[in-house]
Amino acid sequence: MSDHAANLDADDPLADLREEFLLPDGTVYLDGNSLGALPRAVPVAVNRVVEEQWGQDLISSWNSHEWIRLPTTVGEEIAALIGAAPGQVLCCDSISVNLFKLLATALEINADRRVILAADEDFPTDAYIAQGLAQLLGESRCELRRVAASDIESALSDEVAVLMLTEVNYRSGERHDMQKLTNAAHAVGALVLWDLAHSAGVMPIELDSLNVDLAVGCGYKYMNGGPGAPAFLYVNQRHHGCARQPLSGWLGHRDPFAFSVDYEAATGVQRYQAGTPAIISMVALKAALGVFEKVSIEGIREKSLALTSFFMGGLESRGLLRQLECLTPKDAHRRGSQVSVRFEQAWGLSQALIDEQVIVDFRAPDIVRFGFAPMYNSFGDAERALDTLAEILADGRYLNDRFAVRATVT
Amino acid sequence: MSDHAANLDADDPLADLREEFLLPDGTVYLDGNSLGALPRAVPVAVNRVVEEQWGQDLISSWNSHEWIRLPTTVGEEIAALIGAAPGQVLCCDSISVNLFKLLATALEINADRRVILAADEDFPTDAYIAQGLAQLLGESRCELRRVAASDIESALSDEVAVLMLTEVNYRSGERHDMQKLTNAAHAVGALVLWDLAHSAGVMPIELDSLNVDLAVGCGYKYMNGGPGAPAFLYVNQRHHGCARQPLSGWLGHRDPFAFSVDYEAATGVQRYQAGTPAIISMVALKAALGVFEKVSIEGIREKSLALTSFFMGGLESRGLLRQLECLTPKDAHRRGSQVSVRFEQAWGLSQALIDEQVIVDFRAPDIVRFGFAPMYNSFGDAERALDTLAEILADGRYLNDRFAVRATVT
Repeated sequence: MSDHAANLDADDPLADLREEFLLPDGTVYLDGNSLGALPRAVPVAVNRVVEEQWGQDLISSWNSHEWIRLPTTVGEEIAALIGAAPGQVLCCDSISVNLFKLLATALEINADRRVILAADEDFPTDAYIAQGLAQLLGESRCELRRVAASDIESALSDEVAVLMLTEVNYRSGERHDMQKLTNAAHAVGALVLWDLAHSAGVMPIELDSLNVDLAVGCGYKYMNGGPGAPAFLYVNQRHHGCARQPLSGWLGHRDPFAFSVDYEAATGVQRYQAGTPAIISMVALKAALGVFEKVSIEGIREKSLALTSFFMGGLESRGLLRQLECLTPKDAHRRGSQVSVRFEQAWGLSQALIDEQVIVDFRAPDIVRFGFAPMYNSFGDAERALDTLAEILADGRYLNDRFAVRATVT
Repeated sequence: MSDHAANLDADDPLADLREEFLLPDGTVYLDGNSLGALPRAVPVAVNRVVEEQWGQDLISSWNSHEWIRLPTTVGEEIAALIGAAPGQVLCCDSISVNLFKLLATALEINADRRVILAADEDFPTDAYIAQGLAQLLGESRCELRRVAASDIESALSDEVAVLMLTEVNYRSGERHDMQKLTNAAHAVGALVLWDLAHSAGVMPIELDSLNVDLAVGCGYKYMNGGPGAPAFLYVNQRHHGCARQPLSGWLGHRDPFAFSVDYEAATGVQRYQAGTPAIISMVALKAALGVFEKVSIEGIREKSLALTSFFMGGLESRGLLRQLECLTPKDAHRRGSQVSVRFEQAWGLSQALIDEQVIVDFRAPDIVRFGFAPMYNSFGDAERALDTLAEILADGRYLNDRFAVRATVT
């Protein structure tokens, strides 16, 4: 390791957090933007919920271990990371399912409008869910309208019921200006729904103070909640009481255990629960969120920017940008916590890196993503990724036949 | 224990299965119809998915440990228990969310009809979800019509798009005649959607041979998948290809990792996936399903009926029916795997039983349920429940003040 990287690691106030994670020896894991690493506290918590709570206390655990409150208690821990006052965030279901609930809510609140405005570049499930809702409701009541991200502001009009955007783009790592776009949407009477999949847990987010209406986000990326961890949703309290949601399952009822005949929505964000939550997966996420008690979200963002700056600087100083195109903005305010590069043989390059235990991921057709998780990635990690990348680009290993076969999941 | 119960246990071919479960000493657990007991294989499997797969193999586990296929592989294990040929069952989401998908599908298939017919007595979430869909679509396109279960057949008409029924009632334990009602629905051109929450895993079900259209069911009751285990859904293959579903998340796309702009539904039942599945909870369910390899579903049903017959016979022979009303049908073909009694002080009675480590549950306002799980309940368990019940009814303990405060979750 260079002195420079070693010094940065020595001066890193978050360096000790790496001890909170169980990572394989010798691996540089730069894919926390896809699946966060395993926090040390998780196996303990999962073992307790399975063996002690489920195994010994059985059905009584719904009360005695407060399983029934987990969507709320985990939701409140997430709320603290995204600038939401209590009573507005719930941990439940997947992003896809939560988007459906919130888009339907938005169309009800803005009942005289029918357009969901979205960016071409966002993660597909957001648009897919909007298409599913639009098809169900029919074009007289709902239309998904997509434009290039750069054209969002000019596409805002009084036809738009809700602007749905992802704060940080999953491919490029580019970040939208949430304040500006929220204000622009509100100026034409539209609501905003922010997808925080690639930003929650890795940078400060101020949903309340920016006056955001609705948001969803992910438990398994920067929150380290484990594969397919339950997602979350946010509904600003000014929309409580008026808005309904169509996935009106029993746990969103105001008194689920009365087993009454007709649905009556719970007050507040509780009505956004549907069915019984996956308790074991939710307990894993809760344990993972405990790591955030040891650090501020501002401290995480500071290190995140230092890591991505270090890495982007290295791409340039080593001359790698002659072969790679960096898609991630140089302006710190305009990026998330990943650095994405474009390369024609991106698949082979990603596999050659993984072969050297530098775990990155590939996004079709030609992108390699280097995700930086400030809780467990070091400047030494970033330097080793640069060194390995330089070697592979120099010797052309990415063309090797053994890196040719694509896996199902990429 | 009486000789009679001891002999029945000695002759029970399923007796050894109890060793597959980790149950607290001294407890008679009769609430497997609400939360199945912990299979011994589950902590091992959960530990492996957390520490080895997530912790060490990280993102690559989606391929190398086939996480991406779990909704299908777990679905196929469930298919074998419900009489479904391969390619029609998926493990995903919750019953509530899955009902929404399938009711929307049914209304699309039967597009010239608008009525969802349901029974007053079914578990509320089924009706709540139908109400949510009806409200979203508007009354011109969807109406939930409920009648007493006994009036279902006469309420079937050419207005009915889909008949939605739960095979075994959650309160009474009464079982519908799936064949008769499926045929009756088809005779008027309606589809059927069966909720198998209280029957899957505890009795043979023949979805394919009865020509059922759609079904949903639960992973955490008789399948022992753990608290909030993912649910399942069934779509008969004759409806593949034509029907869409509105929760069109990325994992239901025909090529999710192409990240294409527009949603294009996967072929077959795969399109009923929405977002990323809760892997840890799903792995727990998969491990739990392994117990079914050691026994036939017919053998489970045989023991289930023997247990409920023994218990109902005991209620009668001990004279307990002078105080309790048994709601569960005497006719074996007409019941599930629980015995429900009505009693004015049902809450106090349930708490007095639990206080003696006979775990039952209460359903408002006046029902106590005794659920029998043939995999781990014995005739000795049933006898101890009878003995304890008789003592409590005799000494009036159910009126004790310490059993007066109701818990949140009942």
